[in-house]
Amino acid sequence: MSQLEDLVRDLVVANRILANEDVVDAYGHISVRHPDNPKRFFMARSLAPELVERHDLIEFDAEGEPINDKRQPYLERFIHAAILEARPDLTAVVHAHAEDTLPFGLVKQPLQPVIHSGSFIGGKVPVWDIRKKFGDTNLLVTNMAQGRDLAKCLGAGNVALMRGHGFASAARSIIEVVRLSVYLPRNARALLRAKHLGGEIKYLSQGEIDARNRGYSPYSTETWRAWEYWANKAGCSHLLTRPGSAGSHHEHGNRKS
Amino acid sequence: MSQLEDLVRDLVVANRILANEDVVDAYGHISVRHPDNPKRFFMARSLAPELVERHDLIEFDAEGEPINDKRQPYLERFIHAAILEARPDLTAVVHAHAEDTLPFGLVKQPLQPVIHSGSFIGGKVPVWDIRKKFGDTNLLVTNMAQGRDLAKCLGAGNVALMRGHGFASAARSIIEVVRLSVYLPRNARALLRAKHLGGEIKYLSQGEIDARNRGYSPYSTETWRAWEYWANKAGCSHLLTRPGSAGSHHEHGNRKS
Amino acid sequence: MSQLEDLVRDLVVANRILANEDVVDAYGHISVRHPDNPKRFFMARSLAPELVERHDLIEFDAEGEPINDKRQPYLERFIHAAILEARPDLTAVVHAHAEDTLPFGLVKQPLQPVIHSGSFIGGKVPVWDIRKKFGDTNLLVTNMAQGRDLAKCLGAGNVALMRGHGFASAARSIIEVVRLSVYLPRNARALLRAKHLGGEIKYLSQGEIDARNRGYSPYSTETWRAWEYWANKAGCSHLLTRPGSAGSHHEHGNRKS
Amino acid sequence: MSQLEDLVRDLVVANRILANEDVVDAYGHISVRHPDNPKRFFMARSLAPELVERHDLIEFDAEGEPINDKRQPYLERFIHAAILEARPDLTAVVHAHAEDTLPFGLVKQPLQPVIHSGSFIGGKVPVWDIRKKFGDTNLLVTNMAQGRDLAKCLGAGNVALMRGHGFASAARSIIEVVRLSVYLPRNARALLRAKHLGGEIKYLSQGEIDARNRGYSPYSTETWRAWEYWANKAGCSHLLTRPGSAGSHHEHGNRKS
Repeated sequence: MSQLEDLVRDLVVANRILANEDVVDAYGHISVRHPDNPKRFFMARSLAPELVERHDLIEFDAEGEPINDKRQPYLERFIHAAILEARPDLTAVVHAHAEDTLPFGLVKQPLQPVIHSGSFIGGKVPVWDIRKKFGDTNLLVTNMAQGRDLAKCLGAGNVALMRGHGFASAARSIIEVVRLSVYLPRNARALLRAKHLGGEIKYLSQGEIDARNRGYSPYSTETWRAWEYWANKAGCSHLLTRPGSAGSHHEHGNRKS
Repeated sequence: MSQLEDLVRDLVVANRILANEDVVDAYGHISVRHPDNPKRFFMARSLAPELVERHDLIEFDAEGEPINDKRQPYLERFIHAAILEARPDLTAVVHAHAEDTLPFGLVKQPLQPVIHSGSFIGGKVPVWDIRKKFGDTNLLVTNMAQGRDLAKCLGAGNVALMRGHGFASAARSIIEVVRLSVYLPRNARALLRAKHLGGEIKYLSQGEIDARNRGYSPYSTETWRAWEYWANKAGCSHLLTRPGSAGSHHEHGNRKS
Repeated sequence: MSQLEDLVRDLVVANRILANEDVVDAYGHISVRHPDNPKRFFMARSLAPELVERHDLIEFDAEGEPINDKRQPYLERFIHAAILEARPDLTAVVHAHAEDTLPFGLVKQPLQPVIHSGSFIGGKVPVWDIRKKFGDTNLLVTNMAQGRDLAKCLGAGNVALMRGHGFASAARSIIEVVRLSVYLPRNARALLRAKHLGGEIKYLSQGEIDARNRGYSPYSTETWRAWEYWANKAGCSHLLTRPGSAGSHHEHGNRKS
Repeated sequence: MSQLEDLVRDLVVANRILANEDVVDAYGHISVRHPDNPKRFFMARSLAPELVERHDLIEFDAEGEPINDKRQPYLERFIHAAILEARPDLTAVVHAHAEDTLPFGLVKQPLQPVIHSGSFIGGKVPVWDIRKKFGDTNLLVTNMAQGRDLAKCLGAGNVALMRGHGFASAARSIIEVVRLSVYLPRNARALLRAKHLGGEIKYLSQGEIDARNRGYSPYSTETWRAWEYWANKAGCSHLLTRPGSAGSHHEHGNRKS
């Protein structure tokens, strides 16, 4: 009934999509900023995303601490708290271990867009190595200091690889962060295979990346088609609300495809 | 009951097969020329192919505009309009992002047939780079000018890769364009792996490609077997009509296997 | 009730296993020699192996011609006829296009056993290139002359790759040819990946290959376990008959594991 | 009701998880030491892990012989007997053929942790080659002499590759050996793909490996989350008992995540 309700329902759908598309498995999570209070955000309690339901969601403060909730939160909630703090322009954050991205966090070869659906990655993806500032650790982001260092690496971009661990992505909306997170591994696979073939590789140009980012809004038909398709595959289509339709309180987006 | 009805039903089956065989996902589409009016064609409205039903089909004019239909069409319908325009000998077109084909659109190494089921590809597959003529774009074919440039690249062949995007394939019938589109990624995988092993690769010779193209018709037993198998896997076998059987109005093809 | 009945039922199970394990898809087939008449063999009519039932089986003569059966046989039945003719010591033949074997038929790097379950391959796998003797063809084995040339390439071994096409395997029993055919692609994958890592590769020694072939019989516990597992996965466990059990007329094998 | 009952139920769950996560298939097995008698252990009879139920379990003595049970045991039970004998600090052992680990047993390039979930591997994984001490064999561990040689290779570590065969892993608990066995192939894949990209690879440092092994206990929230997720995927969630919950007799672990 309210914008908050829509957002919370989209967050549940997003959890299921990320799980069904193999971006996350037992581990990995997604958060969304509170629409009315930028210093709060929502994320599930410590649970595999595939199993998340509405009642599993916890409200967090800006330091990643649960508000009035004694259930176990994700250990790495500080990834979300720190990125949302550093980037007031973004509202949703994903952390995942998606396999195909892992090799690029281990070597010098950067991950950068080669396929059109990878344009949302931006340019070359920075790699955050926790060892630089924190020495030998268990590689998990377990406090705000580590989260803020990761957010610094993310900079003005939308994704950072985490060496030997996975990636963190962030966007203006749940739909966009999910899309980015689903296509990041796909772009990684295409680039890895192009490297197999050898020789010069045609990356997306900055102009192409810009043209694509100008053209898309979260609720344009082309973007919605993927969200609807993934939600359907994940068994959540009954939870979808198209902006502008009855019962929806989403921002009206540009519907031109 | 009529040839049009058979064609339209095959188009629905084809959508499901392409989705089930992972050639298309949320994105990708297939069209077929109107059997009675070469300046018209049919394709689904903007919807994931997996979900397409008979009532989702729209009739288009030669410029890719829907006729008497206000539903949202695919953004890239101009791929279909332009190829059908340039190639009066062909009746069906597929556009897909099938992952295994993507690397070959990024490098110099051409994709060409190495396995017998890849013979329908023809010789070396041309790569269409939208940047050549149109500079920095969002890589999508969003008007007839771009579609015609792609059709020019396709030339007299049956498939063209689209750099950083996917491929466009076209054939004399729905069955043949589906077969080509399903086997294109398989051939790509075999070639990629052969490159891993290193050394000289035995490609199909032009004589072998010609021998295979002479031998096959859309409704020969060997071709039908795959169509029936894929339709069964996609849950559509109840929609099949074998040529020559009761209720079928397909062209009588050469049934010799 | 008879040995023939058991054999025919195993042939149906084998078809389903090969399909479910992705050795075959729409294409590919398996035959078994008639237990009472070595100049006859059984194989399904032209149908995807996944769909084969008892009533789909056709009896063939030594030239690969159906006996008293007007249904369409597989085009490449001559592979089976010729190998069964050349190898009176073997009773079952498989032809398949299994993807992971394809690259090895295209390059100089031979496919040979690296993992213990690949020992049934024997030593280096010969590659049959139809072009050598028959020039440009559609690559299919469509007559006894081509089949006999393939059988010559197979020689005294159990498998031959068919350049740009797939492989043909043959063994003393249905269980063994299925096992060989399932493990051939697995061995191919392990070898391909070992080549990625680079450097010297430890192949199975001839002594190890011999030790393994001495140790296994079709109905030993270790072999039966895989057959039972695969049949169960393929939904056919109700069709299994363990040798020595009530209703079975299989040869009594060595049950020592 | 007792600790033994919990352990036995976990062993059934572990069998299903290893099968569902493709660590094992028809072949492969897991054992657990008897909680009250260190010279005894439990493991299923010779059966695919996917099919194992409580009543399939056999109790073994220290030499790998079944106690009062005439059913066929796994041929390679000596892997378990020997490792449990050599390592009184460990309680559970897995033997598997997981495909992605196979290449590393064939070449000089060692398998070592590159991703955080691979830290449980320890440092470089030793490769046991049965040929060194036993010459040409069928590669199977079929007696205590071979099992003890493998255990010597394992040394103080938690996993050893078995050349041309698979791996053996061992840990302090069922949950930990399952986790290690599931993540070993994942780490192998990441390392293989990083090698494709070329150049220097950032392995986990010994300090990172140590930090991670200090932090985890079998029943910490982060570890339990994966166990619960995998059990749910394998259809066994109804069999789970969380330590500290009603009906559980597991050791109380450190629940701090």
